[in-house]
Amino acid sequence: MVENLKYVFQTEGDVFILTASGTGGVECAVSNIVNPHDKIVVPVFGFFSERLKEKILRRGGEAIELPLQWGKAPKADQVKEVVEKAGDVKAIAVVYNETSTGVTVRDLAKIGKIAKDNGALLVVDAVSVLGGEQLPVDEWNVDLCVAGSQKCLACPPGLSLVSVSKKAWATIEKTPRSFYFDLVEMKKFGERCETPYTPAVSLFFALDEALKMVREDSLEKRFERHKTCAEAFYNAIEAMGLEPLPEKEDRSHTVIALRKPADVNNAEVRRMMKERYKVVISGGAGKLREEIFRIGSMGMITEAEVIQTVSALGNALAEAGHPIKTGAGIEAARLRFVSRD
Amino acid sequence: MVENLKYVFQTEGDVFILTASGTGGVECAVSNIVNPHDKIVVPVFGFFSERLKEKILRRGGEAIELPLQWGKAPKADQVKEVVEKAGDVKAIAVVYNETSTGVTVRDLAKIGKIAKDNGALLVVDAVSVLGGEQLPVDEWNVDLCVAGSQKCLACPPGLSLVSVSKKAWATIEKTPRSFYFDLVEMKKFGERCETPYTPAVSLFFALDEALKMVREDSLEKRFERHKTCAEAFYNAIEAMGLEPLPEKEDRSHTVIALRKPADVNNAEVRRMMKERYKVVISGGAGKLREEIFRIGSMGMITEAEVIQTVSALGNALAEAGHPIKTGAGIEAARLRFVSRD
Repeated sequence: MVENLKYVFQTEGDVFILTASGTGGVECAVSNIVNPHDKIVVPVFGFFSERLKEKILRRGGEAIELPLQWGKAPKADQVKEVVEKAGDVKAIAVVYNETSTGVTVRDLAKIGKIAKDNGALLVVDAVSVLGGEQLPVDEWNVDLCVAGSQKCLACPPGLSLVSVSKKAWATIEKTPRSFYFDLVEMKKFGERCETPYTPAVSLFFALDEALKMVREDSLEKRFERHKTCAEAFYNAIEAMGLEPLPEKEDRSHTVIALRKPADVNNAEVRRMMKERYKVVISGGAGKLREEIFRIGSMGMITEAEVIQTVSALGNALAEAGHPIKTGAGIEAARLRFVSRD
Repeated sequence: MVENLKYVFQTEGDVFILTASGTGGVECAVSNIVNPHDKIVVPVFGFFSERLKEKILRRGGEAIELPLQWGKAPKADQVKEVVEKAGDVKAIAVVYNETSTGVTVRDLAKIGKIAKDNGALLVVDAVSVLGGEQLPVDEWNVDLCVAGSQKCLACPPGLSLVSVSKKAWATIEKTPRSFYFDLVEMKKFGERCETPYTPAVSLFFALDEALKMVREDSLEKRFERHKTCAEAFYNAIEAMGLEPLPEKEDRSHTVIALRKPADVNNAEVRRMMKERYKVVISGGAGKLREEIFRIGSMGMITEAEVIQTVSALGNALAEAGHPIKTGAGIEAARLRFVSRD
């Protein structure tokens, strides 16, 4: 299993499996490197990057925020400016795929370079994206990377995965660590293929199988499938006269966020999709709760689910009284799959 | 599920389900009440009470240790003396069932009274015992009680359960909390039957079923079954000329610890039990690693498993060259089940 974990993280570093959800994994990464008053640069552009900031604050760290509008992605030059202005930055912490807004940080490789050049660590919350989108941890200078079991890896929820670069260990060893999230202990036990505490055994077996499936498929094919499905969604959304939340270049391949038309009720549309068409999508999180819809497009997603979701969304919006061209959406989605071959 | 949780904890307080193993549950309890320099009295009499102390220290707490020989249980008067001498004690933290030595703290109710009389909270690590042994949380003044899903509740591992008394909330609210183990957030979400983070869904379903099974059975019958099986083990051990580690009054009903005869090798005996008789038992933990055997006698344990284990243990010891009366052990175990009726 360890070898397959390193494969999905594209790393020669260590990868640990935690009996904790993604939030626990991110807390683990943060708490193993952040001491009181440490300067940590954190772009905030959605619900989960707010949480990342909060975790840094709870450790007593000085969170140096790069505040952005929800739906925007931080750019490398913005991060660089904040890092250089702050000086003596211990780490940059980035949510790679902001699940709350459907935004992916396309500049992550460049941000990794900025971290490296400034002697800072790069911590990445990749909970909802690892396995679904390119993320070569070593090549992009990611020092601590966190994934969830239940997102693009398509395993049941309950585990999180944390990778640690060789460079990060020196900092971790000097940091007072929590007992449950102590990466040094995990490394010690990991060397004899154990965990320091009772693991969620049934989920470990599921993860083992899920990783084998990624390996058989290949990461490249996984990335391609997620990209195709996401683009089919975006094409369909635009063809139906709806509007994705992020700008084109920032759009996630795993979480599709679109603005809710003003003339319908968010919960009502989703209830109709669920009851009549058996398709579950989300509303927004945090301050965008009412304004957007979010579609999870990850893991085992294929053309069938894309088409089913587009037609359910179009039909529910029509039922709710919003004028919409569902057929055009379905046609646009279908064409994206044809053009793949 | 919440109602069944309150039933097994015998509490009117709150009970939360954490996506974390028992160690995480105990860290949650400790980290929600311990601030730097807080005085916490902790009896140390085995591997898990050492860990409990370590968790207090990692929070910056002042762990006031009551050190005991491994295999002994702390008595109420010993705890009282330490508490009164220390003065201004914020909490007493006790491992109710010390899994490493097979010892149960029979004075726990009295210790609860001492905590109450001294204005201190009582934190109990009941990971390996809740559901298998009497533990009326409210009646015994337990303020934070932690159980594991995979022990006496017979659910797969990966969840822990934490109860919180009404009295404890005032302290928790004033304590700077970790993000993942924040009980105040759990309470907020719990009120709408949610968790603050993605839970281990498949394990929640398993726990729901496991709790229903406890309820159908009744706690009293569960306690009785654990007691009978444990006494059958102890009777068999003594009839075979072997020696339980703890004194009679301190012996656990869920974990049976016995001294390894000097003329055999610990790992070899256990390997033989596993390979020839398909019975897995443990060696010791920490400093008793080589000296003792430990038998898990919890959850779905019945006469069948007791007899199978006693005969496997006797036979493996005989094969390893230790003179032993296996038949007498089996007979003693059998008689204990007969006498129950």
